[in-house]
Amino acid sequence: MSSLKMFEKPLGMRDTFPITYEKVEAIRQTGRDFLRARGYDFIKTPSLEYFDTVGKASAIYDAALFKLVDSQGNTLVLRPDMTTPIARVATSKLLKEQIPLRLAYFANVFRAQQTEGGRPAEFGQMGIEIIGDGTVFADAEVIITAINLIQAFGIDSFKITIGHAGVLNCILKDYTESAEQADKLRTLLVERNYVGFEEAVAAFDLPKTKSDALLQFINEATNIGAIEDIEKYVRKNDALEYMQQLMELISFANLSQYVALDFTLSSHMNYYTGMLFEVFAEGSGFALGNGGRYDGLLHHFGSKVGATGFGIRVDRLLEVVPSNKSAKQTVAIIFNDEQFTKALEHAKKLREEGKRVTLQAKKGLVDEEAFTKQFDTIVYVSQEDLA
Amino acid sequence: MSSLKMFEKPLGMRDTFPITYEKVEAIRQTGRDFLRARGYDFIKTPSLEYFDTVGKASAIYDAALFKLVDSQGNTLVLRPDMTTPIARVATSKLLKEQIPLRLAYFANVFRAQQTEGGRPAEFGQMGIEIIGDGTVFADAEVIITAINLIQAFGIDSFKITIGHAGVLNCILKDYTESAEQADKLRTLLVERNYVGFEEAVAAFDLPKTKSDALLQFINEATNIGAIEDIEKYVRKNDALEYMQQLMELISFANLSQYVALDFTLSSHMNYYTGMLFEVFAEGSGFALGNGGRYDGLLHHFGSKVGATGFGIRVDRLLEVVPSNKSAKQTVAIIFNDEQFTKALEHAKKLREEGKRVTLQAKKGLVDEEAFTKQFDTIVYVSQEDLA
Repeated sequence: MSSLKMFEKPLGMRDTFPITYEKVEAIRQTGRDFLRARGYDFIKTPSLEYFDTVGKASAIYDAALFKLVDSQGNTLVLRPDMTTPIARVATSKLLKEQIPLRLAYFANVFRAQQTEGGRPAEFGQMGIEIIGDGTVFADAEVIITAINLIQAFGIDSFKITIGHAGVLNCILKDYTESAEQADKLRTLLVERNYVGFEEAVAAFDLPKTKSDALLQFINEATNIGAIEDIEKYVRKNDALEYMQQLMELISFANLSQYVALDFTLSSHMNYYTGMLFEVFAEGSGFALGNGGRYDGLLHHFGSKVGATGFGIRVDRLLEVVPSNKSAKQTVAIIFNDEQFTKALEHAKKLREEGKRVTLQAKKGLVDEEAFTKQFDTIVYVSQEDLA
Repeated sequence: MSSLKMFEKPLGMRDTFPITYEKVEAIRQTGRDFLRARGYDFIKTPSLEYFDTVGKASAIYDAALFKLVDSQGNTLVLRPDMTTPIARVATSKLLKEQIPLRLAYFANVFRAQQTEGGRPAEFGQMGIEIIGDGTVFADAEVIITAINLIQAFGIDSFKITIGHAGVLNCILKDYTESAEQADKLRTLLVERNYVGFEEAVAAFDLPKTKSDALLQFINEATNIGAIEDIEKYVRKNDALEYMQQLMELISFANLSQYVALDFTLSSHMNYYTGMLFEVFAEGSGFALGNGGRYDGLLHHFGSKVGATGFGIRVDRLLEVVPSNKSAKQTVAIIFNDEQFTKALEHAKKLREEGKRVTLQAKKGLVDEEAFTKQFDTIVYVSQEDLA
């Protein structure tokens, strides 16, 4: 092995150094306090799951799964998301009684990268799931919680765009002539390939009324201020009414300025069956997080209850959270061999005063100047003030 | 897939439910505050590493490694310990200047299980590493920090047994007649197979003075009060003198009652080159943690500096930490459709008072009685006191 290879890490794998670690820790602590105060209970699931259970259900592209084979010959995956393992736990252990569960997590998920494109193959996610409540109030709680959580991190410039799988399905069904055409257009929307969408519509050779409606949809539906704006060309349906109610609840919480409608929103997570949303912060090119209703996933695990939730990516939060400068004062106590006891006593005293105190034998230092530069204060035990 | 299989988890993999999660979180927080106050900086390394770098160097039995192959055909391992990845990071990134590093971690490590024997295949470890200080003061700091940390968790009945690879090597060399004999005995000690040790000594057909010394060693050296007790049959060497100094420093910290010497102590972690130790708590059948000096591992990564540290297993700590009962008051606010805004306002008020408040639409409840049982207080928004 060459000496270069000795320090290499697998594709997309990262070390987290102290400054970033403390930023993540602050996010974790703020988020935990916030979510626990709202009645969410944190749980954890293992890093490895069976491919046949969580792997297949997770709806993450197969190529992004880290797979391995255990000593029994079963295929395992490193969890690619948290929603699927939580659905497994909820269905098998927690849903014995018919009561809504409010669960939270702060965990790493894994997505294999094929090229070194700067994308992490392991990243932190923080999120919530409300399982066993099928009402619009649960969806409103999820969106309101997402908004308030992001505000709790000190971020104020962000937008949540909300769509609905049912509205999109209705439009695609009404204005195409086959399920294949609808699927093709849905796939292009998942990729946000609007040009491809227009080209596909032209190629389908649809009646002019249909193709006009689809083109109007793709041009207008990405940024809708009010439900009425889309009712011109979408027939009345339950999903639209649901969205009307949801937007009303968000307005009752005085949070309308943070949300916008985008009915072209579609997810490769095919378990999203109702409303779905994405969070974009100013200054971050990627979605900070996303969420939605995923009753279909619970049905997969044999449960008939509804489920809704969201997750935020910690790596992307790191790029936009304001930095926190309230670090504790750091002190290094440097001692000679015979001063060990005195140094211990002095360290204890300073730590009780709330300082971060490093004890260091002078004998253990090669470059004393470089060492001392790291601290706010240096104390030599030989100093008289310690007597 | 049968419905049973649908909820199964891989061998040794566990879910962590809210009560246990909060206990782990309390341990994490106590440990973090404690170690940061002592000048340790937390870092994180990825879950996956190359087998050729960290996997091979980690000295965990090959059968316990979770291995997989990435899209480039490289073999990866789920990190089986934290000491090796930290040695990689320290050598490649942090040791640019010749200053001692004090690093800490709280992370999961992975050890594949061959049978369902109740042992976890993924568990948390919290620990520290002092890298770049070869003095006995660094070793004393590690042991004193281990003792004070365990005390900080509220545990007072525990013992640390300390040995030294150099002392053991000296004894095994002096009283056997070949390196093979010494290795055989060392392996038996790693397994704590004292009967096997005595049988092997008999089978070697050694001169009586040697076999007597080895039998005296195995009978007496597991619990030595003072260095003098072993000097009867071990020739003076640097390692013994080092241990004398180490015990003296621990006594200066008034912590002698927590330590005992055991010169039969030997680790399958072959990177321990100097003193090594294990922590046993009363009420736990397994070692809570272990540590020692591992200069050899840094040399493997091409660095000539010394390193010492310890790690504590979080799953075993959980079994012995006293439980903490200071939970916040929980409140559920149950509201009818038109009371949403009122419910939001009241929840905000109660959360500001420090309560954990769950908001729940009455419409979302199937079994209201079961739901309400979970909370200290139930508030119905229709009540007049909210007016």
